[in-house]
Amino acid sequence: MTTPRARYPHRHLLGIEALERTEILSILDAAESFFDVSRRSVRKVPTLRGKTVINLFYEPSTRTRTSFELAGKRLSADVINISVSTSSAVKGETLLDTVKNLEAMCPDVLVLRHQASGAPHYVASRTKAAVVNAGDGTHEHPTQALLDAFTIRRRKGRLEGLVVAICGDVLHSRVARSNALLLRKMGATVRFAGPRTLLPPAAESLGAEVHDRLEPALEGADVVMMLRVQRERLAGTFLPSTREYSRKFGLNEARLALAAPDAIVMHPGPMNRGVEIDPLVADGSRSVILDQVEAGVAVRMAVLWMLATEAEGEPTAGA
Amino acid sequence: MTTPRARYPHRHLLGIEALERTEILSILDAAESFFDVSRRSVRKVPTLRGKTVINLFYEPSTRTRTSFELAGKRLSADVINISVSTSSAVKGETLLDTVKNLEAMCPDVLVLRHQASGAPHYVASRTKAAVVNAGDGTHEHPTQALLDAFTIRRRKGRLEGLVVAICGDVLHSRVARSNALLLRKMGATVRFAGPRTLLPPAAESLGAEVHDRLEPALEGADVVMMLRVQRERLAGTFLPSTREYSRKFGLNEARLALAAPDAIVMHPGPMNRGVEIDPLVADGSRSVILDQVEAGVAVRMAVLWMLATEAEGEPTAGA
Amino acid sequence: MTTPRARYPHRHLLGIEALERTEILSILDAAESFFDVSRRSVRKVPTLRGKTVINLFYEPSTRTRTSFELAGKRLSADVINISVSTSSAVKGETLLDTVKNLEAMCPDVLVLRHQASGAPHYVASRTKAAVVNAGDGTHEHPTQALLDAFTIRRRKGRLEGLVVAICGDVLHSRVARSNALLLRKMGATVRFAGPRTLLPPAAESLGAEVHDRLEPALEGADVVMMLRVQRERLAGTFLPSTREYSRKFGLNEARLALAAPDAIVMHPGPMNRGVEIDPLVADGSRSVILDQVEAGVAVRMAVLWMLATEAEGEPTAGA
Repeated sequence: MTTPRARYPHRHLLGIEALERTEILSILDAAESFFDVSRRSVRKVPTLRGKTVINLFYEPSTRTRTSFELAGKRLSADVINISVSTSSAVKGETLLDTVKNLEAMCPDVLVLRHQASGAPHYVASRTKAAVVNAGDGTHEHPTQALLDAFTIRRRKGRLEGLVVAICGDVLHSRVARSNALLLRKMGATVRFAGPRTLLPPAAESLGAEVHDRLEPALEGADVVMMLRVQRERLAGTFLPSTREYSRKFGLNEARLALAAPDAIVMHPGPMNRGVEIDPLVADGSRSVILDQVEAGVAVRMAVLWMLATEAEGEPTAGA
Repeated sequence: MTTPRARYPHRHLLGIEALERTEILSILDAAESFFDVSRRSVRKVPTLRGKTVINLFYEPSTRTRTSFELAGKRLSADVINISVSTSSAVKGETLLDTVKNLEAMCPDVLVLRHQASGAPHYVASRTKAAVVNAGDGTHEHPTQALLDAFTIRRRKGRLEGLVVAICGDVLHSRVARSNALLLRKMGATVRFAGPRTLLPPAAESLGAEVHDRLEPALEGADVVMMLRVQRERLAGTFLPSTREYSRKFGLNEARLALAAPDAIVMHPGPMNRGVEIDPLVADGSRSVILDQVEAGVAVRMAVLWMLATEAEGEPTAGA
Repeated sequence: MTTPRARYPHRHLLGIEALERTEILSILDAAESFFDVSRRSVRKVPTLRGKTVINLFYEPSTRTRTSFELAGKRLSADVINISVSTSSAVKGETLLDTVKNLEAMCPDVLVLRHQASGAPHYVASRTKAAVVNAGDGTHEHPTQALLDAFTIRRRKGRLEGLVVAICGDVLHSRVARSNALLLRKMGATVRFAGPRTLLPPAAESLGAEVHDRLEPALEGADVVMMLRVQRERLAGTFLPSTREYSRKFGLNEARLALAAPDAIVMHPGPMNRGVEIDPLVADGSRSVILDQVEAGVAVRMAVLWMLATEAEGEPTAGA
């Protein structure tokens, strides 16, 4: 393989916002090259033997943590999991002190999930370790957007020119935000749909069309991406009852019929079956929800590889 | 080693109920071959290098989880621990969705502990991964029964013809159930003893004699297996006080004298010392309680090896 | 490398109290030899391949657990983490039963943190595994004292003849106790300073000068070691308000000016910034707080190496 630094000149992966189109493509291409290992046709590669990846999670996430852990282990890295519950954060140490302490133990990559938007950016500028944002508040979740793009590209052969409907609680969704940023950069059309109170005020700045009903957003869409109703983020927000939400904004087969005949259905998980998505759709032939999970390991292998190799200061093509 | 598939033609290990006598023997024999590695005369073998084992535990269990983790690591597998507390299950994802997500990350073996009887069976029929039941509700705990059989066989040279007394809260004990099934298949005589309210109504279907006092069950027994009083499972059941329980159903030296002169004493742990078992017995010369733990690693190595090799579709002797 | 047993004739590391001066030096020297691996100039060494280290923590500690885990993994050991919360200890198993069970799974080293002073000593005399005390109640935390000594020696070139001020809640601090024991053995002068209610009654038995004000303790000190205010240990103790504590016993730049011109500042972490230490001092040029963390991995590699090799019964120089 050619040195990744040539194609990804960043020390960190903090968000989609800072990435160029070519950099996004370089990650997706690298993920393709790891896909066989991630799917286990090849068992394991020694690429990151002796490297250390720390998963530092301030919010619980079985799915994302497991995906990063597997990605690291299939590259033969040592992976350390640290789960910081609110109660132990109460002990009083600041995020930066925790990170500085971990940095002193010389990890190569620090994968950080934090409830505060911007936390990974704050940390990244103050540490020698490569930082991967594994979800920060309502801000970004770049590896999710990359694995979604990987999944779409495998199914549709391209990203450019596609119409993607992102539906649900767009306002609080870092998944929606990262996806919209990525898809716009790659030349796709993005539509947001959701209850008026759950739509971002500045959606236009993300280049997205905005709909307060599901139907017009689905009309002819190539990709329908349903978001999880995150009750834990909705304190203080007016939220319709589950039944009402499902009736108006749940994706069922009738609504899906509005999309393009070969539309695919996505969901970042965990799903609330019967709320934002009907089980018949979730398990239907158009669903690529499990392909997304599968893609996640490959994309995270690519990201860890790029950053851990980068962190080693390998020569760049341009240098 | 010969290919295990020839001897264990199952994709999963869900319970003792579905196993043939010869299949049980094949697991015990494989465990013998791993016993030196499990006891560290041999440090580690590369048998499962590149394979992934996921421990998915919906109930906490330091002992069983650690045993499976060590078994996997001594075979050089990558082991991922996932502990799902009730609180995060509240997030709303179904067990099947969680398993489907993990399946998409391509583990070879999924070790599942769940509070619902039948959960591993439900999952196994819907996933490509090999599933090991690490305890499901009040139903089965097959690796515990196998490690118990391994321990008995090493001490007694056989299982056939032995008299085994299983004593305590038989009603709620998956350990009792799996042991009774296994021991009956192997030609042992099983006696259940416990307070009337804690004896299973259909004990005869398991081929066990039933006693509501300890003494007749112990009479001449070759093996005395004490069960843990699981207060957490006894909500709503009439339970005598600890002192009363101990007085009537605790195993002390006087009672043990009723058993065969060379009888061995077992307990699946964790023990309530002074409740179901007197410390003098637990730590006495007839106790094989720690041999059981030691056997656990060897048996779980054998099971992981059989299933992970099976999962790879290696040729069978008969095919 | 020469066999460590020649230089460290103990099976365990339970406290500084039982160590000879030469044994302390042998650990510090071994840590020097691992420092390049711990700092990642060398990625990883196969020294403990096939060995098993179990981290058994009855108190949560991200920092210490992670440090031991990394130390083990950089030596290629298999590391198993077990976190026992109070709630699961309520299940009723005794500490000794838990340890005996783990022993039956044949770990080489058991790293134990426990809230009860003396727990590791109690356990060590009853298990075949090598035991490392990772902090027991208010008693000892030997690897912390060793990493502190390592850090001081690298900065000052020696330990002998130095004046070390240990400041804060000395009474409840196992860090203070282990450090005082080690520093006295190595010929340093130790001063304790803190509120009168937080000073140990028998400080003189540790060979320490005692001050109930910070200033006289800092006067001309070569090393200033600030302790964490551990509110969780102070129930029932009279504690001044945070503001009051900070005003009287917090280390700020004005107070630090009383120390030697080249004095270094230490803290075992996690820090309460603005309470026992001013951020300007914590992040200032004299602070070696992150060097301590870095040293921790090297020291723990040395300890694991010595004990795991010892456990194997390698020949001693004298045998």
